[in-house]
Amino acid sequence: MDEFAFIERMKQSAYRQSSLVKGVGDDAAVFRQSARDIITTADTLLEGVHFSRTMMNPFYMGYRALAANMSDIAAMGAKPAFYLVSIVIPDSCSDDELNSIYRGMSSAASSQHMDLIGGDTVSGNELSIAITVIGFVAQDKARYRSAARSGDFVFVTGTLGDAAAGFHMLNTPKGYTDRTHYENSHCMPQIRSDFATRLESLNRVALNDISDGIANEVNEIAEASNVGITIYDDWLPTRSSFTQFSMDQQRNWKLYGGEDFELIGTVAEKEWETLKLIAANTNTQLTHIGYAEPSENNGHHVTLIDHADHKTPLLKKGYTHRSSDKNG
Amino acid sequence: MDEFAFIERMKQSAYRQSSLVKGVGDDAAVFRQSARDIITTADTLLEGVHFSRTMMNPFYMGYRALAANMSDIAAMGAKPAFYLVSIVIPDSCSDDELNSIYRGMSSAASSQHMDLIGGDTVSGNELSIAITVIGFVAQDKARYRSAARSGDFVFVTGTLGDAAAGFHMLNTPKGYTDRTHYENSHCMPQIRSDFATRLESLNRVALNDISDGIANEVNEIAEASNVGITIYDDWLPTRSSFTQFSMDQQRNWKLYGGEDFELIGTVAEKEWETLKLIAANTNTQLTHIGYAEPSENNGHHVTLIDHADHKTPLLKKGYTHRSSDKNG
Repeated sequence: MDEFAFIERMKQSAYRQSSLVKGVGDDAAVFRQSARDIITTADTLLEGVHFSRTMMNPFYMGYRALAANMSDIAAMGAKPAFYLVSIVIPDSCSDDELNSIYRGMSSAASSQHMDLIGGDTVSGNELSIAITVIGFVAQDKARYRSAARSGDFVFVTGTLGDAAAGFHMLNTPKGYTDRTHYENSHCMPQIRSDFATRLESLNRVALNDISDGIANEVNEIAEASNVGITIYDDWLPTRSSFTQFSMDQQRNWKLYGGEDFELIGTVAEKEWETLKLIAANTNTQLTHIGYAEPSENNGHHVTLIDHADHKTPLLKKGYTHRSSDKNG
Repeated sequence: MDEFAFIERMKQSAYRQSSLVKGVGDDAAVFRQSARDIITTADTLLEGVHFSRTMMNPFYMGYRALAANMSDIAAMGAKPAFYLVSIVIPDSCSDDELNSIYRGMSSAASSQHMDLIGGDTVSGNELSIAITVIGFVAQDKARYRSAARSGDFVFVTGTLGDAAAGFHMLNTPKGYTDRTHYENSHCMPQIRSDFATRLESLNRVALNDISDGIANEVNEIAEASNVGITIYDDWLPTRSSFTQFSMDQQRNWKLYGGEDFELIGTVAEKEWETLKLIAANTNTQLTHIGYAEPSENNGHHVTLIDHADHKTPLLKKGYTHRSSDKNG
């Protein structure tokens, strides 16, 4: 496919975002944003690393690729508005597959009224999808990992481990219930953009998206904010059908899974009620899972307390892998 | 190299752009821009298609990759401010090579005080560099290809065909003079950002960067503006040492070369003197190469007039390739 065909394919009949001045079709896109801060992130998803064409429908590959970047925007408390896509296409990728990838991205984009405003395609040996997403947030309301303070409530949205369980199910055709939910959590993760955007009304929030499991993300918050954080294992939200998996799988997936792109964060206790209201108004499951504490000896630390009140350090993924079953 | 190492490598000690609120280090970057329009473009450069590791120093690969995207920003009349980089790195690419790629990008960025604000690295089989550049321009002063009007002067900056000649020289170690200039035109193209930004003082400019040769770019302007354009072959600016190449090479490179990323555009005759002043003030060679005319039978058309006053249609690259010598 040449660049001209790509541009024709990408051209939308109408712009969804009022801030867009010029979309696809010239050397670059033009937009305007005087009232709000602008948020941007870029990531590449690569076949064999982030997805497998033999296992995954190309529609879902496109959906997940864009969703992963939309999640980074949500993790800043911002609303995604635009995306740019550069795809390297191998000969083995048919035009139908490519179209499905674009339709998948388009589906993820339409839920937030995003416009595709640029990018290109190149013929290569290895399928890769490089995406940039641009979003907006009220001035000075971008939410950083470094904003947690001692005494904060730690919260997560949704249920944990579902995408990892879904990935496992895709590789295991028989013997489980509630498949649709888990597999969709992996293939078409729902991004918490509406919830994230409403956080503007809070004074202070630390925020991160769960792309690598809460163990990793909560450590990032503790480190960036220089606080301690204690998490209660019993409080971690999981789906009722999650008990069908082995204890080891459950533990691994809820602590070290991810890619369902739920949000984790902290707020002051006095803003907890407001946060609950935001969750209710956006139809978002919200769970209090622990507390932020003073740092010890000037170092951050994360502790997991189990049902028997045993404390263990909760370290980042990679340091604590107890099983090779991660992501299936 | 893991993502953490990447982030550490990318972190700058200080922000150059005053509009940058938060650079590398959280889920996404944050900037603010109330007075100016925002311009953005994304492109992927792929080994074997856009560059060759066996032929080109990795420093230049990085430099050219960013320069090509900066040129798209210049082609909108805008000033580049930020860039994001996603690199797919094969095992065969050493840490030294990767560092050189980054240093090359950093060198291209520093000339315009740009900040690196995001991206990632992924291990793969094929080296690719996906870049997004964000720039700024005065409101309603983004320059489109569609702005040409009948009677306009057509202009180009610099001299034509130098990067294509430089690419040829890199493949031909002996027998030419003025090598440094030509090879630098290919390896470290100078982007006309200063000239482009000053165009804000003009009422109307059509603008394009010469990435695929003027034959292609002038057709894009004629098509988008629905005008005819006549170009005078004798007026096309080339370097004095350009006569060392064969007549066929000269013709091919000046019409169908590119990648020295000069600018081509049109302005009203009454703004020509102002344009000359901008060129003089930014130390930019500026040449009047032809005229825009009414479209014929409602169709755009581009004509080349040679020294003997013969008229031939000048078609886009790909339709008119007279030689396989393009780019060497």
